Amino acid sequence: MSFVIDAAAQDLLFREARTANAFTDEPVTEEQMQAVYDLVKYGPTAFNQNPMRIVLVRSDEARQRLLPHLAESNRAKTASAPMVAILTADNEFHEELPHLFPHIPQVKELFFSERPVREQSAAMNAALQAAYFIVGLRAAGLAAGPMTGFDFAGVQKEFLDDDHTPVMIVNIGRPAENAWHDRSPRLSYDDVVTAV
Amino acid sequence: MSFVIDAAAQDLLFREARTANAFTDEPVTEEQMQAVYDLVKYGPTAFNQNPMRIVLVRSDEARQRLLPHLAESNRAKTASAPMVAILTADNEFHEELPHLFPHIPQVKELFFSERPVREQSAAMNAALQAAYFIVGLRAAGLAAGPMTGFDFAGVQKEFLDDDHTPVMIVNIGRPAENAWHDRSPRLSYDDVVTAV
Repeated sequence: MSFVIDAAAQDLLFREARTANAFTDEPVTEEQMQAVYDLVKYGPTAFNQNPMRIVLVRSDEARQRLLPHLAESNRAKTASAPMVAILTADNEFHEELPHLFPHIPQVKELFFSERPVREQSAAMNAALQAAYFIVGLRAAGLAAGPMTGFDFAGVQKEFLDDDHTPVMIVNIGRPAENAWHDRSPRLSYDDVVTAV
Repeated sequence: MSFVIDAAAQDLLFREARTANAFTDEPVTEEQMQAVYDLVKYGPTAFNQNPMRIVLVRSDEARQRLLPHLAESNRAKTASAPMVAILTADNEFHEELPHLFPHIPQVKELFFSERPVREQSAAMNAALQAAYFIVGLRAAGLAAGPMTGFDFAGVQKEFLDDDHTPVMIVNIGRPAENAWHDRSPRLSYDDVVTAV
């Protein structure tokens, strides 16, 4: 069975892509971030809810505020990354639904009037968008270093408001030498799939 | 700014990819599903936890058991899809961590001894894997129709056990004519991104 995208693209996006833990000092620009976002924004979400929001940590001052909230083992990589993105879920995404899902305008009230339902939906769909974003970074030739090893409440208090929940932090750049561990095993198809 | 993958691949994966609501009767094989899984299994998850499990609904009997649990508006598309995948999160994924994350063997006990923590982590990381799977289907030239409009408890009871939580159902095949609505708008970069 053959893929439509070529082997080099398969390798770039998945087979040879790795979570980078160290980066060169080659800059990553906001123009690159916009190109990635403008590609991956088309990835599907439930009711087209688009709950992911992004805080780009650009200034030295902001980075210094971020580092203490990370697990100690994660600080050096984030300190060395030319771009750091805090990916968050907007728990008030439903306000945008009349615009984003125009063919059923009542979805906002019908399904998302309760905050706990919104929080669960935003977390799940922002995770989907985070995965599209990681794939998009790789498609742009950048290495991504997604992390969840940080104090979520601390990062929320430092950078966000009560309506935005952190999903992950992604270190972004060109991989330095020895940027990753050996590849760990994956579960096989037979481990994961059953047919009924 | 240029992507490394070519414009055709960008279009196939994101820009022109659409959630299909109707399918031709061209078969989708388990070999295709294995090729997709064997590509996207490399997508990153926290501690390499790989929590996604997949139930492929192949037999007519199983499909008849699935349809009543779907929102009425989703039944016709799932009835017409040549392949249907129930994507689930394994809340006991931690049992595999000594194998999957060998360089820190204590992760299983250190972080995942509590079931509610595992459920949250499995839901988030299985959502990442679901997104990789959708991208992989598209890379194989297949149309994906992800849905969350179904009775989660009913699908769990019918097809899963207490340790597996549904994440989404994906209809898979070649798109029929008029397989989708007009593209709905997306939030713009400036709506979503702030820099600090």
